[in-house]
Amino acid sequence: MPSANPHRDRVQALRARMQAHQVQACIVPSADPHFSEYLPPHWQARVWLSGFTGSAGTLVVCADHAGVWTDGRYFVQAESELEGSGIELMKLRVPHTAEHVEWLLEHLGPGATVAVVADSISLAGRDRLQQQLEARGMALRTDLDLPAEVWDGRPALPRAPVFVHELALAGASRTDKLIRIKQAMQPHGASHHLVSSLDDIAWITNLRGSDVECNPVFLSHLLIAAEGPATLFTDLGRVAPEVQAELRHDGVDLADYAEVSAYLAGLAPASVLLLSPAHIACSVAASIPAGVHIVHAGNPSTLFKAIKSEHELAHIRETMRLDGAALVRGARRLLERVASGEALTELDVADIFLEARAGQPGFMGVSFDTIAGYQANGALPHYHATPELHASLQAEGLLLVDSGGQYLGGTTDITRMWALGPVTDAQRVDSTRVLKGMIGLSRARFPAGANGPQLDALARAPLWQSGLDFGHGTGHGVGYFLNVHEGPHGIRPPAPGGALVPLQVGMINSIEPGLYRPGRYGIRHENLAVIRPALSTEFGDFLEFETLTLCPIDPATLEPALLDAEERAWLDSYHARVLEALSPLLEPEERAWLGKLCGPIAEYSRD
Amino acid sequence: MPSANPHRDRVQALRARMQAHQVQACIVPSADPHFSEYLPPHWQARVWLSGFTGSAGTLVVCADHAGVWTDGRYFVQAESELEGSGIELMKLRVPHTAEHVEWLLEHLGPGATVAVVADSISLAGRDRLQQQLEARGMALRTDLDLPAEVWDGRPALPRAPVFVHELALAGASRTDKLIRIKQAMQPHGASHHLVSSLDDIAWITNLRGSDVECNPVFLSHLLIAAEGPATLFTDLGRVAPEVQAELRHDGVDLADYAEVSAYLAGLAPASVLLLSPAHIACSVAASIPAGVHIVHAGNPSTLFKAIKSEHELAHIRETMRLDGAALVRGARRLLERVASGEALTELDVADIFLEARAGQPGFMGVSFDTIAGYQANGALPHYHATPELHASLQAEGLLLVDSGGQYLGGTTDITRMWALGPVTDAQRVDSTRVLKGMIGLSRARFPAGANGPQLDALARAPLWQSGLDFGHGTGHGVGYFLNVHEGPHGIRPPAPGGALVPLQVGMINSIEPGLYRPGRYGIRHENLAVIRPALSTEFGDFLEFETLTLCPIDPATLEPALLDAEERAWLDSYHARVLEALSPLLEPEERAWLGKLCGPIAEYSRD
Repeated sequence: MPSANPHRDRVQALRARMQAHQVQACIVPSADPHFSEYLPPHWQARVWLSGFTGSAGTLVVCADHAGVWTDGRYFVQAESELEGSGIELMKLRVPHTAEHVEWLLEHLGPGATVAVVADSISLAGRDRLQQQLEARGMALRTDLDLPAEVWDGRPALPRAPVFVHELALAGASRTDKLIRIKQAMQPHGASHHLVSSLDDIAWITNLRGSDVECNPVFLSHLLIAAEGPATLFTDLGRVAPEVQAELRHDGVDLADYAEVSAYLAGLAPASVLLLSPAHIACSVAASIPAGVHIVHAGNPSTLFKAIKSEHELAHIRETMRLDGAALVRGARRLLERVASGEALTELDVADIFLEARAGQPGFMGVSFDTIAGYQANGALPHYHATPELHASLQAEGLLLVDSGGQYLGGTTDITRMWALGPVTDAQRVDSTRVLKGMIGLSRARFPAGANGPQLDALARAPLWQSGLDFGHGTGHGVGYFLNVHEGPHGIRPPAPGGALVPLQVGMINSIEPGLYRPGRYGIRHENLAVIRPALSTEFGDFLEFETLTLCPIDPATLEPALLDAEERAWLDSYHARVLEALSPLLEPEERAWLGKLCGPIAEYSRD
Repeated sequence: MPSANPHRDRVQALRARMQAHQVQACIVPSADPHFSEYLPPHWQARVWLSGFTGSAGTLVVCADHAGVWTDGRYFVQAESELEGSGIELMKLRVPHTAEHVEWLLEHLGPGATVAVVADSISLAGRDRLQQQLEARGMALRTDLDLPAEVWDGRPALPRAPVFVHELALAGASRTDKLIRIKQAMQPHGASHHLVSSLDDIAWITNLRGSDVECNPVFLSHLLIAAEGPATLFTDLGRVAPEVQAELRHDGVDLADYAEVSAYLAGLAPASVLLLSPAHIACSVAASIPAGVHIVHAGNPSTLFKAIKSEHELAHIRETMRLDGAALVRGARRLLERVASGEALTELDVADIFLEARAGQPGFMGVSFDTIAGYQANGALPHYHATPELHASLQAEGLLLVDSGGQYLGGTTDITRMWALGPVTDAQRVDSTRVLKGMIGLSRARFPAGANGPQLDALARAPLWQSGLDFGHGTGHGVGYFLNVHEGPHGIRPPAPGGALVPLQVGMINSIEPGLYRPGRYGIRHENLAVIRPALSTEFGDFLEFETLTLCPIDPATLEPALLDAEERAWLDSYHARVLEALSPLLEPEERAWLGKLCGPIAEYSRD
């Protein structure tokens, strides 16, 4: 008799295959061969097997135990989704860590074999895992795809159309970008360079797609030969013949997505292959002949892509105007409708801002799922309202809206707090403390060569002073009509062994300190800012942030007396810039509304 | 015919021994088997061979080249001292790095043998060097002491008396300290623990000595058995019989310094030996039998020692009063003598403060050589006036004095700027900017678990804002009647692979931002501060600094208008504390003088 829970059956089927292959544990991570932030359904084996749909989680199946390791964001959801599956929720003590490996090391004995799908583990990840297992006398196999053996109705690979990001927008041709990459290959003596990260490939080729939710990328690998053309491996059926011709003209040959293995297998024994071991899947690397010398280093394009050109920045500044005007339009509509007594929910918030953005030229979609958290829901940094679970908006309190757009001329990401009516003194005090952190970092200057972890405390110090803090990073890189999260840099506390990437002129960072009062309310203020030269002295070159985001910070959410003179000056100057930049794009009544938000903060009256 | 330069002859003699042993390069580092900051003359082979007397430098001798690698502090001095020796000054691009190894890798071919004295290289250092050399087909030998083969008149080992740091001062008995260490050995399964770092041994045994300049330590090793007594290896002739008896009573057996090798050689094959590979010399480790399992970890005592007990802190606070009163007395005398037109030099400054400190109970000597830099000399962060080269003091401008004392009840380290007369606006502006950095960090709160590298920017941000910075760390740990520099913590920019040691309640840090205008003047303000609990909230425990140093910051060196309200409040409150704490220890006229320095900064008049 079949069990009532399909996931129980699926795990049992997996166990049967494990037994057949004499495997004692099967790890099913949340990863695809491109290590994308969002996974196409084709690689969501963990979701299919376990039923747990959260964005982060690792399923481990043993003969007598199955568990999903996930972090605090998902404890409630996972508990509910795993019910009846026989799979235990394993609560991560520290998010984004491999605590399931510790568990395996403790619960399996020497001689055990652990299997991981080669599609879902990078070379770097495999080396680490293999070392840990072998130190305890266990073995790792990556040559089995056990979930695939039981996965009936596995979704096909996505194959949305691939289109050209025109040169007028991209600013640099794919030919020029390939030349730069080949130059960067030279010091490594690399004859070839393999790229699997989809945003790198999209940036290099000046192509975009929509295979992955919110990220305008397309499934592909790219093999760049130092001498000769590059080869783009992707589903050819969705690349128009004229685009294929253009690519070939620019030195980019085409081959089918699955052909990458055959091409790698055909590399001459003396080849030197540059690749980033954290960004190449074992499944892809498996066919590299033994004679090929592999050089481990980051993809040169990752740094090139992170440093925005003046051409890109000009488009991004214009995009920020369009996005800001849409946000002002949306916010005004939202606040008016709430004030009018209309019954709105958090779900409507995303729609209102999407509608406002959709009216702007170049808008291609959201850059991530909108986070609209009203009052207590704002205290969940990764909250998503669902049709089943969401709050109704009242004409009081704080609404946190974290949203972003993909435009042909840039990617946006902004968080604003909106007062839907009266807010408490405590809310205004907290909101102002967070703003002090945002201003502190936004107006900071720092020496060239400084890295994000070095600056992180500048955004936290005003919160720390009152015994407050937030549990996420302060800032991340942002792509150019590409992924809203991109490396290699970032602003977060230093971590043991963590990267210390210098912040360079042209890099975009989010600056987004927060404060979360569980069960009460949450605060986050977020702008995007680009690194610019500030001044040069006998002590060297100094850099600073130029705030790119153009949208008012609702003064009704602030307590101006807590801002010092420099902070007030920063805010007033920012608001003057916002008003000037957005006014030409607004209707007269919108402009008047914006003017009230953008006046000198010391003169703002909540009444 | 002998050459006119003895160092040329010594290097030639070394080369002859190298040839006899078929060694192509000999590295002579600045290190002893305890990795002390200051070396006893017995281990100053680099100085004897090369003639270069700076504190940091590595001599490398090959058949056709000899060079001393040192950092920018010493370029002028090394150039002069190496003249005629045939030894080339090799300028380090980055201080404290092993650029001589890069040089060797480039200049020696495969098959070459490199020798380093086993006394002067740690296990960790040997592993690193061996790996680098072997990757290029070269070999490392640590079984030869080539400098010793040619070193006529090598100084004997120091053997100053060893004395007890009384329990009333130490606060915890050596028996209790050994129990704590044995507890910390348990998770490692260690049957034995070897300690060679002299400050660890002094702290554990509650003994002090004076074998090393400025550091009240004595040459020794300590082998702690989990079951049974510890063994202290030191020159027994300088330990009084009653102290030896006291030690034996407390579970510390004694053996001669050189016996450590024999004891290690006698470890049973099943022994598990805990040691810190960066703090054990190859010469010492050489005798450990192959069957012994070595566990690499930091010395538990290093962290225990860094976290000062309430008992120690009570003595330290009293010591700070004594030291502060001496500094006030010395500064007043100095400024009066300068004002009277007396011809004083930088050399007199050290004497004046030493004399003032020497009058205080418990004073045992300076904790490091006083840095007294007048005007342009203040711009050299490690400047030392010498009889040959020093400045005369005038009744104008800035004098930087960085000095410290060893007291039975604590170790001090303080930098103050003194206005010897009129100072320029630019000097006051710079001095105030540095003070803003010191205040910024001194009044900061931060979450428990935060580390120094995370906080470093808080002391630099006010300087960065004006395109200014300083090239040294912001703060270091300080011992308790022990080394003025101690780990494991510190406040400095995060570095790749660098330690991120959480700042814990009871740890003492210096807070010493600076600003150096080469050829003009230098600024540094330095206090010592201890980490204390600040407040606990729903976001966890937060910590803060309690400033320990008690000495006014000369308001004549400041531009009060550049301080904001919070900074003025911090300074006024600090000065009020200083005045209250020191007044009872001062003569009436000294008290009146101090009162003028310690009034509200906004009311201070330079006239």
